[in-house]
Amino acid sequence: MIKKIAVLTTGGDAPGMNAAIRAVVRYAIHNKLEVMGIFRGWWGLINEELKLLDHRSVSGIINQGGTILKTARCPEFETEEGQKRALNTIKKNAIDGLIMIGGNGSFKAAHIFGTKYNVPCIGMPASIDNDINGIDVTIGSDTAINTALAAIDNIRDTATSMERIFVVEVMGRESGYIALQVALAGGCEDVIIPERRFNLENICHDIVEGNLRGKISWIIVVAEGAGSAFDIAKKITEMTSLETRPVVLGHIQRGGRPSAFSRTQAATLGEAAVECLLKGESDKAVSIKDGKIAVIDLEFAITKKKLNVDSLYNLVKVLT
Amino acid sequence: MIKKIAVLTTGGDAPGMNAAIRAVVRYAIHNKLEVMGIFRGWWGLINEELKLLDHRSVSGIINQGGTILKTARCPEFETEEGQKRALNTIKKNAIDGLIMIGGNGSFKAAHIFGTKYNVPCIGMPASIDNDINGIDVTIGSDTAINTALAAIDNIRDTATSMERIFVVEVMGRESGYIALQVALAGGCEDVIIPERRFNLENICHDIVEGNLRGKISWIIVVAEGAGSAFDIAKKITEMTSLETRPVVLGHIQRGGRPSAFSRTQAATLGEAAVECLLKGESDKAVSIKDGKIAVIDLEFAITKKKLNVDSLYNLVKVLT
Amino acid sequence: MIKKIAVLTTGGDAPGMNAAIRAVVRYAIHNKLEVMGIFRGWWGLINEELKLLDHRSVSGIINQGGTILKTARCPEFETEEGQKRALNTIKKNAIDGLIMIGGNGSFKAAHIFGTKYNVPCIGMPASIDNDINGIDVTIGSDTAINTALAAIDNIRDTATSMERIFVVEVMGRESGYIALQVALAGGCEDVIIPERRFNLENICHDIVEGNLRGKISWIIVVAEGAGSAFDIAKKITEMTSLETRPVVLGHIQRGGRPSAFSRTQAATLGEAAVECLLKGESDKAVSIKDGKIAVIDLEFAITKKKLNVDSLYNLVKVLT
Amino acid sequence: MIKKIAVLTTGGDAPGMNAAIRAVVRYAIHNKLEVMGIFRGWWGLINEELKLLDHRSVSGIINQGGTILKTARCPEFETEEGQKRALNTIKKNAIDGLIMIGGNGSFKAAHIFGTKYNVPCIGMPASIDNDINGIDVTIGSDTAINTALAAIDNIRDTATSMERIFVVEVMGRESGYIALQVALAGGCEDVIIPERRFNLENICHDIVEGNLRGKISWIIVVAEGAGSAFDIAKKITEMTSLETRPVVLGHIQRGGRPSAFSRTQAATLGEAAVECLLKGESDKAVSIKDGKIAVIDLEFAITKKKLNVDSLYNLVKVLT
Repeated sequence: MIKKIAVLTTGGDAPGMNAAIRAVVRYAIHNKLEVMGIFRGWWGLINEELKLLDHRSVSGIINQGGTILKTARCPEFETEEGQKRALNTIKKNAIDGLIMIGGNGSFKAAHIFGTKYNVPCIGMPASIDNDINGIDVTIGSDTAINTALAAIDNIRDTATSMERIFVVEVMGRESGYIALQVALAGGCEDVIIPERRFNLENICHDIVEGNLRGKISWIIVVAEGAGSAFDIAKKITEMTSLETRPVVLGHIQRGGRPSAFSRTQAATLGEAAVECLLKGESDKAVSIKDGKIAVIDLEFAITKKKLNVDSLYNLVKVLT
Repeated sequence: MIKKIAVLTTGGDAPGMNAAIRAVVRYAIHNKLEVMGIFRGWWGLINEELKLLDHRSVSGIINQGGTILKTARCPEFETEEGQKRALNTIKKNAIDGLIMIGGNGSFKAAHIFGTKYNVPCIGMPASIDNDINGIDVTIGSDTAINTALAAIDNIRDTATSMERIFVVEVMGRESGYIALQVALAGGCEDVIIPERRFNLENICHDIVEGNLRGKISWIIVVAEGAGSAFDIAKKITEMTSLETRPVVLGHIQRGGRPSAFSRTQAATLGEAAVECLLKGESDKAVSIKDGKIAVIDLEFAITKKKLNVDSLYNLVKVLT
Repeated sequence: MIKKIAVLTTGGDAPGMNAAIRAVVRYAIHNKLEVMGIFRGWWGLINEELKLLDHRSVSGIINQGGTILKTARCPEFETEEGQKRALNTIKKNAIDGLIMIGGNGSFKAAHIFGTKYNVPCIGMPASIDNDINGIDVTIGSDTAINTALAAIDNIRDTATSMERIFVVEVMGRESGYIALQVALAGGCEDVIIPERRFNLENICHDIVEGNLRGKISWIIVVAEGAGSAFDIAKKITEMTSLETRPVVLGHIQRGGRPSAFSRTQAATLGEAAVECLLKGESDKAVSIKDGKIAVIDLEFAITKKKLNVDSLYNLVKVLT
Repeated sequence: MIKKIAVLTTGGDAPGMNAAIRAVVRYAIHNKLEVMGIFRGWWGLINEELKLLDHRSVSGIINQGGTILKTARCPEFETEEGQKRALNTIKKNAIDGLIMIGGNGSFKAAHIFGTKYNVPCIGMPASIDNDINGIDVTIGSDTAINTALAAIDNIRDTATSMERIFVVEVMGRESGYIALQVALAGGCEDVIIPERRFNLENICHDIVEGNLRGKISWIIVVAEGAGSAFDIAKKITEMTSLETRPVVLGHIQRGGRPSAFSRTQAATLGEAAVECLLKGESDKAVSIKDGKIAVIDLEFAITKKKLNVDSLYNLVKVLT
């Protein structure tokens, strides 16, 4: 029987991480477990920065962006020495299992560390990028999409009023998920994503042709991994002689009050993650798959996610 | 081959109905169909209030609440005469199929009318109540939940600052779906829903006991179908002598800018609905089931939805 | 030279109170003062619930609704005994002056207490009601108006789509300030306020006449002090036979993230309040009057505010 | 007696322009005037793109960003020939006066054109830059500040969670107004504005010193006219070796649902502008000055606005 678990947040922060911490802590305490909070991700595990969390310590955070446990990059965790120091913290503090709240990179680290040192690790997917395999939607992703969409709605006002072209860069280094969702929800005229080759000449051709028909305002969404809004806007201006403005949404997509969906997800996945440890599972991720809670192997979760982008892309184009 | 379809919105308006109309119209036009928009739901079908919609007629509405086609109650559509007049409009205008955007009551009407008069009817689920069977989430439901949640977040500020008890009534005549989601996402202390008996004495006992431990602020969510915030607040005050305030969120949950999810849903379901008519299907509803697009029988969709409320309810209680 | 001051929040909470506390604490510390935070308003002064606040203790609260010092009603403060106990706390803790953040009722109490016991008291106006004389806008009022306006915008979607009449009750027991601002900003068809007699028959006449012209949706804002949305909606239905729905916005107007204006106001008034105490002033309120910081007598501030409502009311009617 | 006026929006769009158009149109019609709407600013005046606006033509726009009259740059209006063609449109359409809704540049053009050709021109200040002299706040400015503030609040979540430095660029080519308001309301650590020299070495010194005290997250706001977020972030990284991220808010600040204040301002200034024309005034701007409606000379309004930035800047620094 396990008695004490630890929870940490790693990688970039995502809205709903605090709701996830709250769920893990309270569900664990309800099941007679002690919960340690580790600060600054793997760094805190290596440097033994942790403290016992009680029921009250997670009060009032459910609707706050960011993470009260903070998060940080930690290259040292990739070294043998770093990992051994982390293991030492775990043993010294009699920690029976880890719940790691984070994204793809963090899942990889958890998989390597957990299997190598035989530490039960359960991953909770929280990342605005939604780039974890076997998982419909990561915690925070729905919030980030709504934040980006609100920005697009604002830009649409100017695009329409000033009859201009905008290229809006959204997050997504390897995945066009946010870009596609935002383009579809925002009624955008085109979307450029890493999963799909694009031809700027075709886009410019469409723009010029639309212009002749009287369709003068245009918003093109680009995932950061597929190109730079600045470069693309510059090229469109060159090719079409039409004024084109770049907007890079950047870090505003990362923070903010989590949406209802990001929070309920955090609650149900927090329950599932603690249940995994209670049942003695390890090297797993909890997930919402096909609309239902599922437990998948970390090894599978860290393989490259394949998004079926064509049908959504075509729908964006048909509806515009 | 069908050539002309009609689209209408019925029942209470829901955020995302406009995005749904836009999707239906543009996807249909892309497929060489003509689309008639019928005004004020069944009433417009009976009274022949309709007009041809083109690509431009649905511009700039994707992010607007309400419905440009308007909606209305229509008891006349339950009569033989009303139905015959509706049928007459359909024949006169050479309409080959109807796409009906609405909720449970509207689906029932579509099922009866479509089968009786052999008119191809496809239902698109849009309702903040999320009370349609075989459908994970209706269009508008995610938006309504986020609106109610923002209200709850605001109320929490006062509940905490003034150390008070609030009873917040949310929509849901027959379903506790919104109430449960909001309670879980809002970190609420209790939730009262139609699907589950509640005992006010137990709730008051919890409140008084919490009070002794220093837990003084309390938000109880109630679905309108399970009780009145005014009555419950009054009884809690009587039973506990603690100041308890009712808040009825009411119609603010119905309108507003649709969320990203409500809009992407509207787009994909709009495509699916038109595809159904193109394939010659009838008496069906398009749906997102287990996270995927599905086509289900209207007859099944109108049977009573059974929500598994116990696990969510227990999670609300454990996490508070 | 004063060395130590105390700050408290009293009456109903208002968005921006936390930003005000932060400004007072940090501006005072910058001026070498010690600052005590008193909990639950006058109650904490009577019961000696207070603690020293440092720079860090007000971190991360600038954008949070409510008040970290909490607030409560305190009838005991109106008694001789209560006041003497409060005075005792002040003397025992060597407090040289009080900054009281609150509304009209709290200003009255501060005026009585400060003059009677010779305690330097400076009032900072924070109240969603905007009912303090000599003060353009209280802290929190701009936020409350924006919250109510967002609700009205949502209701407009349904009013237009379903062609209905809504009566929306907003805060304002003695003042129609919020109601007028919201009605003007929301494009509402009428507004009922305490400062102005209204004639429901005239309103109903307008509605029926508008109905004949095709103007079917209607939003009437009512300040809570001028009538009940339920009663008014019921009477309109009776008089016009048109479906009329009441919405009571209630406590959602009180909380939430403070607007930019509520926060900058809190900052500049916090500076002004501490400056008053540094200069040896007492029995004053800091204020924004005619767009500029001003210091006014508490005695004047608590006299009945006279709002010039007619020009705004007429503008609402002309523009609708 | 004047009989017909025209209204146009020029320069960059600002939230509240639509509310301003609505107010002008309806107040004018109420006073028995005809109102022509001119499309795309001065361009439409030159090219005779205009149409009669009735009461209904401005329905449903009060809460929409952008401008239904559209706006455009028009270098031709600076030429003699352009101006003569504009005059021709005015004469041909029997327009007795112009209401021009726009910013500083547009006011200059209105002043030159109106005095040279003896056309009564009244300016309504609408611009997110708030750079018009003699005017407390332009229409749209309050909304833009709130939009930028929401972005800053989001970024704060990440700054705190990841303990990072952010440089956030906001609008303001010649004015630090938005930057100062946002920095004060957002609790930002520093702000760089055109009106005030800044020394990056001092800022870096503060950052490093703060870092040693444990203050690790930092948000520096920069007005676009005072520097580039990219350049400043790069230099801070070089000077301090601390990871610093730039964010350029850009066009998201321009659009969106106007705030209550931007809308009520639009209403009262719209009334004032029409009143000016009714009274035979010309070459004036309507303004809110010291919290009250005022009418000022366009000649004065276009002189450089001098903002007293030092007191606000110091307050930002003291409160951080």
